[in-house]
Amino acid sequence: MSQDVATVLLGDPFAVMNTIGLVAFAFVGASKGIDEEFDLFGIAIVGLAMAFAGGVTRDLLVMRVPLALQSPIEIGLGLLGILLAILLSIALSSPERHPVTVISDAIGLAAFATTGAIVATEAGISALGIIAVAMINAAGGGAFADILLDRSPFILFEDFYASCAVLGGISYWLVGPVGGLEGMAAAACATITVMTRLIAVSYGWSLPTAQDLERLRA
Amino acid sequence: MSQDVATVLLGDPFAVMNTIGLVAFAFVGASKGIDEEFDLFGIAIVGLAMAFAGGVTRDLLVMRVPLALQSPIEIGLGLLGILLAILLSIALSSPERHPVTVISDAIGLAAFATTGAIVATEAGISALGIIAVAMINAAGGGAFADILLDRSPFILFEDFYASCAVLGGISYWLVGPVGGLEGMAAAACATITVMTRLIAVSYGWSLPTAQDLERLRA
Amino acid sequence: MSQDVATVLLGDPFAVMNTIGLVAFAFVGASKGIDEEFDLFGIAIVGLAMAFAGGVTRDLLVMRVPLALQSPIEIGLGLLGILLAILLSIALSSPERHPVTVISDAIGLAAFATTGAIVATEAGISALGIIAVAMINAAGGGAFADILLDRSPFILFEDFYASCAVLGGISYWLVGPVGGLEGMAAAACATITVMTRLIAVSYGWSLPTAQDLERLRA
Repeated sequence: MSQDVATVLLGDPFAVMNTIGLVAFAFVGASKGIDEEFDLFGIAIVGLAMAFAGGVTRDLLVMRVPLALQSPIEIGLGLLGILLAILLSIALSSPERHPVTVISDAIGLAAFATTGAIVATEAGISALGIIAVAMINAAGGGAFADILLDRSPFILFEDFYASCAVLGGISYWLVGPVGGLEGMAAAACATITVMTRLIAVSYGWSLPTAQDLERLRA
Repeated sequence: MSQDVATVLLGDPFAVMNTIGLVAFAFVGASKGIDEEFDLFGIAIVGLAMAFAGGVTRDLLVMRVPLALQSPIEIGLGLLGILLAILLSIALSSPERHPVTVISDAIGLAAFATTGAIVATEAGISALGIIAVAMINAAGGGAFADILLDRSPFILFEDFYASCAVLGGISYWLVGPVGGLEGMAAAACATITVMTRLIAVSYGWSLPTAQDLERLRA
Repeated sequence: MSQDVATVLLGDPFAVMNTIGLVAFAFVGASKGIDEEFDLFGIAIVGLAMAFAGGVTRDLLVMRVPLALQSPIEIGLGLLGILLAILLSIALSSPERHPVTVISDAIGLAAFATTGAIVATEAGISALGIIAVAMINAAGGGAFADILLDRSPFILFEDFYASCAVLGGISYWLVGPVGGLEGMAAAACATITVMTRLIAVSYGWSLPTAQDLERLRA
């Protein structure tokens, strides 16, 4: 894919990725609320919390007034994702574990890893900072939703989830700031994140524990 | 109630509502800590966390140094609420579920929905942003206290709680920025929030779940 | 200890205390993750969350871009603490409860109470604000790690933990801003915090509960 094609496909990469991420994560968060049999207000709160927690944290970290408070369109996109989740929940049982939700989650993770990398790069933060902000933007929503739902063990520790966003953030940094292909960086970050996440889910990837390392040594 | 009466009754609406909210929420938070049989330091931490979490989050969202760090009076008001809770706990058993605590919680919710709406309006945020900040300022304290106490399911999802603050925020926006009655907006927000909360508690109001909607359709 | 000796021992007090705190708290957080049998990525996330949550919250409260995002050395120090925890876990069983970990935690608490007091003093915050920021910087990491691990009851409420940082913050304020011995303030804060914490652990100190007060009165 040449840089021109990427520009045509992505337009303003931040706006495109932000739109995709908000709808996808609001959908996933609302599905979590539906699975917990919350009422409609509770479903909306989990959906909005999952859609906005990562981006608001990102904006606070780089000292910006959160975008979510400045633009009514942002909250509208979140409500759209929630509406889709409620409509689908009438057709599907256990929406949280449905493949549509798992894929939406991977897409939201990839979209928000990319918005995080873009904002951090614009803010002039160090390479490790870009990777950290990409991960926080991407994994923060699911983490906050799970904290609200008082779930254990935390989604962040289950398997290749936040680590996919770390790989995406590294790709962004290598292609954009290092490689000078600004237009390609967003596409690379989103692609690497969503692919590693979907492959990890499909094959049940997991990293070794300290206990595994000890057993290896014994 | 004419605007003059409101001004006399409320003086500087922010200062009045902030004072009421800090004492009320510190009282409720400390009562939660007493019910969990925490030691005095633990009681104080839950009380202060409940009193300050919403307002600190509000200040971070609109990019202000949190008021709580600038004025020693703020922490003093929190400690007053905690002291009241400890004194009352000697007279009452199970202070968290006592009507005094439930009413304090509704009053704190209304007071902080109002401070949130005032600060967001001053910060020049959009209408949906005003409503969101009112809700976060009002419901954030109870939410954070419950996260600290590792409780499930979260208070935010139980019933008409955060939604009362949303109604209050909408009232503030309709009466103040839209209606031009600045002096009345705070009174309207506080009244709507506290009344809907107390009525919801009295009548056990709840919203339907997605499962209810599905059953309706079946 | 004269002020000259303190300056020689501590150099730039912030840099020294920040380095000690990051390595110590990353070590303790990673040990918590190892005890929960998380995989290597999960161990790293709990370690980094414990090392950085307090300082990032401190920086947000005083309106600074978090130091952790500006300097790659910061994340490197966190990774060093995590590596030490993994290496030690092969030698030790149950690393979280090992004396090395308990002492590291007390040292991290003292180091971060000191960095919090230094940053708050530089930001021109009130006396109670200095004490609050010292406590949040010191106890925030352990609190956030426990929230991530969905543990109950929360470490903050167990015994003399955050209260040691409060005593440290008071010492800093008395020696530095009040006493005018800037060079001694950091040493006083760190010493008071680590000593009260280690003594409290050794002797099993605890504060009375509201129920104890009621029994005393009966």
